[in-house]
Amino acid sequence: MEKFRVTPWEVKGEVDYDKLMREFGTEPITQGLLERMRKLFGELHPLLERKLFYTHRDLSWWLDNYEKKKLIALYTGRGPSENTHIGHLIPWILTKWIQDRTNAPLFFQFTDDEKYFFKENLSIEDTKRLAFENMLDVAALGFDKKKTFFILDTHHAGLLYPLAVRVAKKITFSTVRAVFGLNNSSNIGQIFYTAMQAVPVMLPKHLTGKDHAVLIPMGIDQDPHFRVARDVLPRLGYNKPACLHSKFFPSLMGSSKMSASSPDSTIYTTDTPKEVERKIKKKALTGGRDTAEEQRKLGGRPEICPIYQYYMYLFEPDSKKLEERANACRAGKILCGECKQELIDRINKFLEKHQEKREKLRDSINEWLLSEDHMP
Amino acid sequence: MEKFRVTPWEVKGEVDYDKLMREFGTEPITQGLLERMRKLFGELHPLLERKLFYTHRDLSWWLDNYEKKKLIALYTGRGPSENTHIGHLIPWILTKWIQDRTNAPLFFQFTDDEKYFFKENLSIEDTKRLAFENMLDVAALGFDKKKTFFILDTHHAGLLYPLAVRVAKKITFSTVRAVFGLNNSSNIGQIFYTAMQAVPVMLPKHLTGKDHAVLIPMGIDQDPHFRVARDVLPRLGYNKPACLHSKFFPSLMGSSKMSASSPDSTIYTTDTPKEVERKIKKKALTGGRDTAEEQRKLGGRPEICPIYQYYMYLFEPDSKKLEERANACRAGKILCGECKQELIDRINKFLEKHQEKREKLRDSINEWLLSEDHMP
Repeated sequence: MEKFRVTPWEVKGEVDYDKLMREFGTEPITQGLLERMRKLFGELHPLLERKLFYTHRDLSWWLDNYEKKKLIALYTGRGPSENTHIGHLIPWILTKWIQDRTNAPLFFQFTDDEKYFFKENLSIEDTKRLAFENMLDVAALGFDKKKTFFILDTHHAGLLYPLAVRVAKKITFSTVRAVFGLNNSSNIGQIFYTAMQAVPVMLPKHLTGKDHAVLIPMGIDQDPHFRVARDVLPRLGYNKPACLHSKFFPSLMGSSKMSASSPDSTIYTTDTPKEVERKIKKKALTGGRDTAEEQRKLGGRPEICPIYQYYMYLFEPDSKKLEERANACRAGKILCGECKQELIDRINKFLEKHQEKREKLRDSINEWLLSEDHMP
Repeated sequence: MEKFRVTPWEVKGEVDYDKLMREFGTEPITQGLLERMRKLFGELHPLLERKLFYTHRDLSWWLDNYEKKKLIALYTGRGPSENTHIGHLIPWILTKWIQDRTNAPLFFQFTDDEKYFFKENLSIEDTKRLAFENMLDVAALGFDKKKTFFILDTHHAGLLYPLAVRVAKKITFSTVRAVFGLNNSSNIGQIFYTAMQAVPVMLPKHLTGKDHAVLIPMGIDQDPHFRVARDVLPRLGYNKPACLHSKFFPSLMGSSKMSASSPDSTIYTTDTPKEVERKIKKKALTGGRDTAEEQRKLGGRPEICPIYQYYMYLFEPDSKKLEERANACRAGKILCGECKQELIDRINKFLEKHQEKREKLRDSINEWLLSEDHMP
């Protein structure tokens, strides 16, 4: 298997998720944990059931706190380096699902400083503008505004920096070099940055004076930040956060993670129906065969098909229907063109509504920012 | 000569000031520059005349701007790791003298984050409290409040951090390792910090929208920060700041820099008359001889005497009288006890008034902080 590399800023090669779990030291989400959540929440989200969220840290502890009606909170975030694409929605969708069931306050961090430090060609004005675009996508998913608090790093620096300095004092260059692969050529903003990403874990206690159990749903590439934060925060009087890690939403070209570096293999939430159609019809790979005849005879291979993954991650919530689709594909009863067309229709139906909600929110998006008038 | 080492956080060994100038790459303040200042300002401060401020960067450029009535500003600061001692006053006194003559707005930075990062045993609450104590000393020197703007790093983080990130993106770990001697064990706050110290250079333009020529009077140990900042700021659309560097105020024990690590060799602005008397009578070294008889015969050595240095730096503004004192000492006409007693009296006279002013300012010191109501 080809070598892979996963850091919060880079996913390279074909990811071996089991190996990644061992490297990062996260725990698998066992069937027992899934059943506990099903019982607690009355149902199980497909992203959990299908093990697209597949590892965690201290999830049982967080569920204990929820069950005992202790104070809990949610935290997730977005690095605003580009417009939102469909893959970004994965952790947000699960976060909303958990918020709906637990009524937990959610801190949603937009890291304009981070993306400025790590993207050579972006100005801080760029990343800030992108953050506001991304906020529209988050809000459009239907989070409970009263319980959802947007944090924009440069906007909230007066609140965040004095907390980040406490974290920063406890982290050495050796640590960020080992954990994130930073080196002598890294800029000092990149080196400092992980302290800023730890801060939203501190906010529930900082703002209310009371201990909270914080759960962070995230792509597993972000785990290194919280591995470090979990080490530091107890020494500062805060609970270790619990973590819930998703696999990466695949690109239309089949590589491990949808990414801005190849926009043609990426569906943005702002894409027009024509763009969606073009990308999926013209660009997407499938698990199909060379000819229709061959496919009818041999069947397709959903397990290696990006189109099938799109159904699995987001566009077929009904697990029975998803299985039927896989079986029909394997049996050669459904061809790639048909499967693609149906996905195009589903994506465009989703995006039409999403884009409408997005634009409706544009004028009032500032109200989602944490402020004296909008505080847990 | 014993090896010495000067960084913004450590002065070790006997400092060779000429060598330091060459190492740092600063320019000597020539007689020509001194005469230009005498002409521009009508007189010359003893700290300049006696070459206790001895090197600079781009001072002529700053004076050009002043002369052409272009926009100028002053910037200096204080790392609040302890109560103020007399040595800290040196750059502040010269800064006030320049402000009085040029009417330049002054940005005075109190770096509570820095001292938290660099002092293992200080909490951020400690450094913040010390910053407010230090502010009293600055204000008590009689700065023009209308033109003097205190910056406290954690308090003003909302303003400072978004500017610091711009600086931070342009500085690598290699640079801070080479310039400041930071290493793998340095914490990531220490590594980031120099970006925060660059920000007050940006503030005059940031707050008014207009280019300013900024002059920074400072102890020469702080020069490395501005060597880096001078490299970065033009790339961000800001002028390089000019710098003016002082030698270190000596300790009563004769070592190069008064320091908190030996409080008995340090006169704090909060010391009682008895403490001043005890430290100078019981602890201070002198350039005197073993016996009064010997001293009357051989004379004392003002050039190696810490007590004489105190007169030279601060407590004998009249250069003619200073020379008379040195001559009387060399001729054995004045003994150390007498010289010490007179210094005790002068210091205590100064401190009595200073402490009175300090306490009067306590209730209103917040008004000196940069704010919407207190802005250039």
